[in-house]
Amino acid sequence: MKPAAPFAYEGLERLFHERGRLAVCTCLIANSDGMSFKALQDACALTDGNLNRHLHALAETGVVDIARLRGQGRPTTIVHITKSGRARFLAYIDALEAVVRAVNESEPERAHDSSPLRLATS
Amino acid sequence: MKPAAPFAYEGLERLFHERGRLAVCTCLIANSDGMSFKALQDACALTDGNLNRHLHALAETGVVDIARLRGQGRPTTIVHITKSGRARFLAYIDALEAVVRAVNESEPERAHDSSPLRLATS
Repeated sequence: MKPAAPFAYEGLERLFHERGRLAVCTCLIANSDGMSFKALQDACALTDGNLNRHLHALAETGVVDIARLRGQGRPTTIVHITKSGRARFLAYIDALEAVVRAVNESEPERAHDSSPLRLATS
Repeated sequence: MKPAAPFAYEGLERLFHERGRLAVCTCLIANSDGMSFKALQDACALTDGNLNRHLHALAETGVVDIARLRGQGRPTTIVHITKSGRARFLAYIDALEAVVRAVNESEPERAHDSSPLRLATS
């Protein structure tokens, strides 16, 4: 059955769709051992304030886990993506992939030299 | 050279990243002959006000073209994506695809039964 509104894309969960949070989650998925606040900030090019705000939103909804490690020196903040956060984020990525797919199906003549995605199964 | 901030995703142009506008542009790419306001609204599940607002933003930046056709009955509004709008939107889609690719590369064990994208080249 064809959906009533095929382009509504309701699976694009707002929590993840915000560009900064999308960057943070993609980065945490790639670094499943966790990342320090500083490393995350550098990888995503976010300001202190922005990264703090995004981490707060993600921690509040159980997507990330924030631990403060205290050693000899300054405490280090380590961020992990949680198991449920990972599952929710991957569902969002599936929705994103549906958008990309819809566009690529409409534009079959596009050259895709820069797109290993399409070459993954070859 | 590795980029300084590999997860910054600066190509995710804000104009297109907003969920409603992403839906509208994806829909217009799939319907290159143009769409009526009503058809666009139904396909994207947007309210009158929201669709108007998004079309205004997209027309102001030259991404879409809005024509009012007057015949015997009520005038019909027909929306097209412009040539430059199409090019800009496809560049945004490439950035989106880079995000999906980054996640999929981090998660090679994901089952992808629902993903014809990866099967497109087989």
